[in-house]
Amino acid sequence: MVKIIFKKRKSVKQVEESTDLAPKFDENGLIPVVTTDHSSGEVLMQGYMNEEAFKKTIEIGEAIYYSRSRKTLWHKGKTSGLVQIIKEMRIDDDQDCVWLKVDVNGGASCHVGYRSCFYRSIPIGPQSDTDIILKFEEKEKVFDPKKVYGNTPNPTKL
Amino acid sequence: MVKIIFKKRKSVKQVEESTDLAPKFDENGLIPVVTTDHSSGEVLMQGYMNEEAFKKTIEIGEAIYYSRSRKTLWHKGKTSGLVQIIKEMRIDDDQDCVWLKVDVNGGASCHVGYRSCFYRSIPIGPQSDTDIILKFEEKEKVFDPKKVYGNTPNPTKL
Repeated sequence: MVKIIFKKRKSVKQVEESTDLAPKFDENGLIPVVTTDHSSGEVLMQGYMNEEAFKKTIEIGEAIYYSRSRKTLWHKGKTSGLVQIIKEMRIDDDQDCVWLKVDVNGGASCHVGYRSCFYRSIPIGPQSDTDIILKFEEKEKVFDPKKVYGNTPNPTKL
Repeated sequence: MVKIIFKKRKSVKQVEESTDLAPKFDENGLIPVVTTDHSSGEVLMQGYMNEEAFKKTIEIGEAIYYSRSRKTLWHKGKTSGLVQIIKEMRIDDDQDCVWLKVDVNGGASCHVGYRSCFYRSIPIGPQSDTDIILKFEEKEKVFDPKKVYGNTPNPTKL
């Protein structure tokens, strides 16, 4: 297989207005990734890629992230079966963020069991109390995390 | 106005399964924000908020980010007129990412002049060349950045 080479970032014009792929990785070598459902447009999750994950994702057409908690490449769905098939991959103006439009086998993307990781909303507007009460927008889990992940440690960090 | 107080992060269960708003800010005091168009579902941009921007956004119902390049709060659209009116605000499972569904006055969100910042796609699959050629998915700019921003410095950093 041909090895993909990212372009060096030479000018704002090149980065914003050309067809060069010249992504910017942050001080930890990561680029943020927004993943949406290709059919519904719903945001499923937000993750990160390092350079290797970025190149592998392009080559195989399935989402590979970099797990910050496990400090390793993370081929999404390899444990749960909920692989993300990429229908389209986009990069933003200054090339420091990636957008994946995916189809998910099984329809769920969230380790808690919901379809989207964003299953709760925040009320907007002047508040009558100091405490914000989140609202569950998804009422039911799509799968039982215990059955799917077994004793795998929960990735959420406090 | 009542001062919003975020909850302390006490347990994985509280963060993932309760109605407490207990967001996690990174080592720079920031939380990533994904912004989509409320009608089309298109991802418009990805930015960051600090605690102050987060609370102000909730209170006024318009998107306020933290600009990493200018190191200041950034009420999106105050220069360009392209204010983002929030229709819905969501937080993800481990509360380290925010999703804004917005209506944009003028329909554009990208300082380069396009509707979305993600106006170019990356070809997927085994590559025949080391160089990736991006494809422009938006053919025409919605506005002329020179007319809108004048001599304001371009925020893109190399």
